Amino acid sequence: MNEFALIQHYFKHAALAAQNEPANGVVLGIGDDAAIVQPPANQQLVITSDTLVAGRHFPENTAAHAIGWKSAAVNLSDIAAMGARPYAVLLAISLPQVDPDWLAQFSQGFFACCAPEQVQLIGGDTTRSNLLSITVTALGWVEQGKAIRRDGAKPGDLVLVSNTVGDAAYALHQPNSDVQARLDYPQPQNRLGMALSGYASSMLDVSDGLAQDLGHILAASHVAATVQLENLPLSSTLQQLPAQQAWQLALTGGDDYELCFTMAPKRFDQFCQRYAGQFQLQVIGHITQGTGLTLWHQQQPYDMNLQGYQHFD
Amino acid sequence: MNEFALIQHYFKHAALAAQNEPANGVVLGIGDDAAIVQPPANQQLVITSDTLVAGRHFPENTAAHAIGWKSAAVNLSDIAAMGARPYAVLLAISLPQVDPDWLAQFSQGFFACCAPEQVQLIGGDTTRSNLLSITVTALGWVEQGKAIRRDGAKPGDLVLVSNTVGDAAYALHQPNSDVQARLDYPQPQNRLGMALSGYASSMLDVSDGLAQDLGHILAASHVAATVQLENLPLSSTLQQLPAQQAWQLALTGGDDYELCFTMAPKRFDQFCQRYAGQFQLQVIGHITQGTGLTLWHQQQPYDMNLQGYQHFD
Repeated sequence: MNEFALIQHYFKHAALAAQNEPANGVVLGIGDDAAIVQPPANQQLVITSDTLVAGRHFPENTAAHAIGWKSAAVNLSDIAAMGARPYAVLLAISLPQVDPDWLAQFSQGFFACCAPEQVQLIGGDTTRSNLLSITVTALGWVEQGKAIRRDGAKPGDLVLVSNTVGDAAYALHQPNSDVQARLDYPQPQNRLGMALSGYASSMLDVSDGLAQDLGHILAASHVAATVQLENLPLSSTLQQLPAQQAWQLALTGGDDYELCFTMAPKRFDQFCQRYAGQFQLQVIGHITQGTGLTLWHQQQPYDMNLQGYQHFD
Repeated sequence: MNEFALIQHYFKHAALAAQNEPANGVVLGIGDDAAIVQPPANQQLVITSDTLVAGRHFPENTAAHAIGWKSAAVNLSDIAAMGARPYAVLLAISLPQVDPDWLAQFSQGFFACCAPEQVQLIGGDTTRSNLLSITVTALGWVEQGKAIRRDGAKPGDLVLVSNTVGDAAYALHQPNSDVQARLDYPQPQNRLGMALSGYASSMLDVSDGLAQDLGHILAASHVAATVQLENLPLSSTLQQLPAQQAWQLALTGGDDYELCFTMAPKRFDQFCQRYAGQFQLQVIGHITQGTGLTLWHQQQPYDMNLQGYQHFD
């Protein structure tokens, strides 16, 4: 099967089938030199590109369906982290060989992750390589000036994180635990990301460990933060670990794809009233003047090694 | 050096330095979860993503500067092929190791290719991998409805190609010839692509061989074409080869990144008047009713093996 037939079979047809309604603003999708998109009125384009390499971003033996899901998820998570509405993706995949079963599973996982927000596949590339590698580019739209950046945190803001953190890192070291799906099927927080537009003062998604990622907000916003260790949101699985080990996973484990954000206390009250019960959020600390992150435990500063994931250490 | 310092040093600073004027519509570039772009009024977004893998899309021993150039060029070429104005790129690069000299050369080549049209680097990703692989996503803008697609060729249209074809394929088999630069430093035809908006009825860039790529126009437009072999534009280097060999290279050699397009004869007259002498264009045949490509030589149909580059054969 040649490249064109391959793309046709597994991605173009699936892309069309995955569209529940007529392509919304997609003037031209897969099959030309480039896709053509009509920008919605008064919106800004949000765009990001992330690569997943076999053996580095997922274990070599990960199921194709999970690889497909995760390839979409980590990019949609970046769109969520801007407070934008995810819109479309381009998929560039390098494959050691053409395995129809693998491709069918991969594309099903990929489209399953895109489906909830009607994210459309509009382009990409398929190449042969000795190493499985996937680069997805994700596009989103956000009202002019409403994107949530990293540089807006202010002293007095609360620091929050969605759901629980540290589970994916635990799953990486303890295969087949109760939290395996947190590693294989991360859930991009797109609904929450959109809801936070107009409320959060800064935001990012947690991919390299909460402490390191929160550090990016602090650096970009020129502020400091204190985080209460006992407030870190832990799954029931991590709650069974010794506290120190659970905190380490929660603060330095990667691959969470939860949202970490800051918000003025008054805005948080308003957000909770408007979205009562819709999202699981945890206040873990607050922003102060200064620089850096300080951990506290039972009203005392607490020292921990906070080395996060470094792709090139 | 960690991932963040790496990106900062070689790409973010260089991206800023490469901008001759304040970022035109780029609200937020490298350094957040995603870039933010303000779409120009009444324009449509054109977007494409292409991967280059070491040993497949360029010889392993290719200079870093040329790899950087080519990574940008093949994607800007796709924007040219839509008749759009190239605007910005995202660079996702997977590297076996951090080699400062290599990165400096790569980024210089990359930005050198982006500079003529003030194309800005607005995002991307850097990952470690055992295999050098680069995926670039290129963005362009085109007036609403003015993009040049593959499906607009009409019987009676002329078939044209820019500059010369077959040189890159020759260089691949004959290293260090006079046309080596055609392989290492393909020139994206962005000025020509923009000029052709409103004139060409269909267009694509020649990356997998002229015959195969023209075949995509024919299939998408539901038309046939005849091409005169003696009209194929050949460099002086290819003109020294036996005619059959030169035609084979011109028709089936990949990596040309020239534009192949169709245009009504009357529109071609108007184009020539408006852009007299600015572009080197060659009429190689014309569009007819029917399907498929027929080659002619001295008023006779001519049979040739026209197998183009198939990534997954």
